[in-house]
Amino acid sequence: MHPDQVYMQRCLDLARRALGRTAPNPLVGAVVVRDGEIVGEGFHPQAGQPHAEVFALATAGERARGATLYVNLEPCNHHGRTPPCTEAVIAAGIQRVVVGMIDPDQRVQGSGVARLQQAGLEVTVGVEEADCQTLNEAFSFRVINGRPLGLLKYAMTLDGKIATSAGHSAWITGPEARTWVHHLRASCDAVVIGGNTLRRDDPHLTTRQADGHQPLRVVMSRTLNLPEEAHLWKTDCAPTLVLTQEGTDPQRQDALRQRGVDVVELPELRPAAAMAYFHQRGFLSVLWECGGILTAQAIQDRAIQKVFAFIAPKIIGGQQAPSPVADLGLTAMNDALPLEQVRVDAIGPDCLIQGYLKMSHP
Amino acid sequence: MHPDQVYMQRCLDLARRALGRTAPNPLVGAVVVRDGEIVGEGFHPQAGQPHAEVFALATAGERARGATLYVNLEPCNHHGRTPPCTEAVIAAGIQRVVVGMIDPDQRVQGSGVARLQQAGLEVTVGVEEADCQTLNEAFSFRVINGRPLGLLKYAMTLDGKIATSAGHSAWITGPEARTWVHHLRASCDAVVIGGNTLRRDDPHLTTRQADGHQPLRVVMSRTLNLPEEAHLWKTDCAPTLVLTQEGTDPQRQDALRQRGVDVVELPELRPAAAMAYFHQRGFLSVLWECGGILTAQAIQDRAIQKVFAFIAPKIIGGQQAPSPVADLGLTAMNDALPLEQVRVDAIGPDCLIQGYLKMSHP
Repeated sequence: MHPDQVYMQRCLDLARRALGRTAPNPLVGAVVVRDGEIVGEGFHPQAGQPHAEVFALATAGERARGATLYVNLEPCNHHGRTPPCTEAVIAAGIQRVVVGMIDPDQRVQGSGVARLQQAGLEVTVGVEEADCQTLNEAFSFRVINGRPLGLLKYAMTLDGKIATSAGHSAWITGPEARTWVHHLRASCDAVVIGGNTLRRDDPHLTTRQADGHQPLRVVMSRTLNLPEEAHLWKTDCAPTLVLTQEGTDPQRQDALRQRGVDVVELPELRPAAAMAYFHQRGFLSVLWECGGILTAQAIQDRAIQKVFAFIAPKIIGGQQAPSPVADLGLTAMNDALPLEQVRVDAIGPDCLIQGYLKMSHP
Repeated sequence: MHPDQVYMQRCLDLARRALGRTAPNPLVGAVVVRDGEIVGEGFHPQAGQPHAEVFALATAGERARGATLYVNLEPCNHHGRTPPCTEAVIAAGIQRVVVGMIDPDQRVQGSGVARLQQAGLEVTVGVEEADCQTLNEAFSFRVINGRPLGLLKYAMTLDGKIATSAGHSAWITGPEARTWVHHLRASCDAVVIGGNTLRRDDPHLTTRQADGHQPLRVVMSRTLNLPEEAHLWKTDCAPTLVLTQEGTDPQRQDALRQRGVDVVELPELRPAAAMAYFHQRGFLSVLWECGGILTAQAIQDRAIQKVFAFIAPKIIGGQQAPSPVADLGLTAMNDALPLEQVRVDAIGPDCLIQGYLKMSHP
């Protein structure tokens, strides 16, 4: 591995320390290297805080002069909540900058690199670029498409069932897969279920990690016909939001608010409207962990870009046992929605198939 | 790789040349090696023909004297349709015999090895044993359990559907998976579907290979309410058998027989009875490629030991779209039937998960 790659991977490791906490900002880590030695490191901890480069330059101090700065995302060149990083890099006397990927934000998009080059710094772009792109894929998707990246996760048996014919679903996968899902949740800004899943499974939807980021737990419910007691109403460990249709049962809304649950009315309670709302709140990624009907709506609303399908090597059977995706209105098999960039992994005894839903589906 | 392993793998390659054609006999290949040179080779081509050792010794001729014989299954020591191989091996002057696995047939079970040792030959047992066991797993299962090994193959979408809600199922998987299934069929003695699959899909169930073994194509139909024209009624490329309930529509039975289709009545048209019939016919392995209802019956009848689940990375949706396994009467997820020795492979764009159904299920 080339030293540039090693230091860029270090940037990615640093960036990941803020996983799930930076929205609407990207995950960024920075390393200052002088004479083959790391003299400064930093990462962007959350929106409103300084950028990664600022922390790295600060710890490097005078040793930044003549050094190389590694950063997984192009330094910003505009005044946002913080002054442009490019000016800080130039002022610190950095000689060479190695950038993982260009910032897709149209306020940057290469202008950061251009500014550095104009100031006489040597700039290398695209080191470990695939890994850099993957780490910030939700940020890039949001910046380009104006909405959060939608992720779908489900667990099914080898015969395609997410529950028995009696509705029983615990546990389909093994502990390794469940831990994997907790990590996935920790990287997301929100986790969404529908009222059916709440009533049937009473899930926690937490990350089960003492120090992990807890995403906003969201229930979409048109009727607010939700149980009095539920794990999601215990908001001391993680916040909960109920999204409902405008005007639904104001009394029930008040009761939920008194429990510490946030309630927001949408004019139309559809996944697309929910995603627009999440975008307003600055979310980068939203994880759908709902049942088949809401999942089908989310796919139809193009609220899902990436699919994580856990498959447990067991057979439960059941003609009426539910499957992960209800009606999409597709009647010919060749109209099925293909996944791209498919990846298959063993997670304990279970199999994880992940991929991207093609955006071109009808 | 030790030379013993190399020559044993050669035996397995030779044995595979008769794939699907040896029932009720095992797949056996043999190699005679003298001074590091192969001087004789052979395989058992089909029941009634000589055993592999006989062919290998015949091609070696006088050069067998003092040589080593490799064979993936213990030589027989009893008079069956052919004289015992042990005597032929001893008579040929073989000095050392390397055996892949002991023959589980209670008429052999180590007696072949004992006879060779008793005659002063050096015998090594268990070289490449796992591969030898796998190649003849159907033979071993039949010998131990008194019925053929049952295989289940299905192809489903990533959301667990084997067809659309309109019943459309072509094509779920890509051409690589379909070719793989043709090879699987070529290794089996029979392929079974139900009347529903025949009516809906009108499958060929052939191996699409000019020189491959064609398994017996079997339709289980209680009513004989089957189409007048179907690919399965064209029996010039492969034989077809219809299994039906005793006394069902004798006229329709005659009409099928006039088309060259074999018709057999069973007292009770269940998978268990079908497997008993297949056992009588000497079959080693039977591949179930049926719909969910017959598959569920076959699992309940313990007519399925091994599962091949192809999963295509695409989503079709459909609350009423069929899944691979209908009702098994299981209502709690922890009662799901686990697979063992699970293996996951990429077959073109698709994923193949295979494993063994635990025999202990209720």
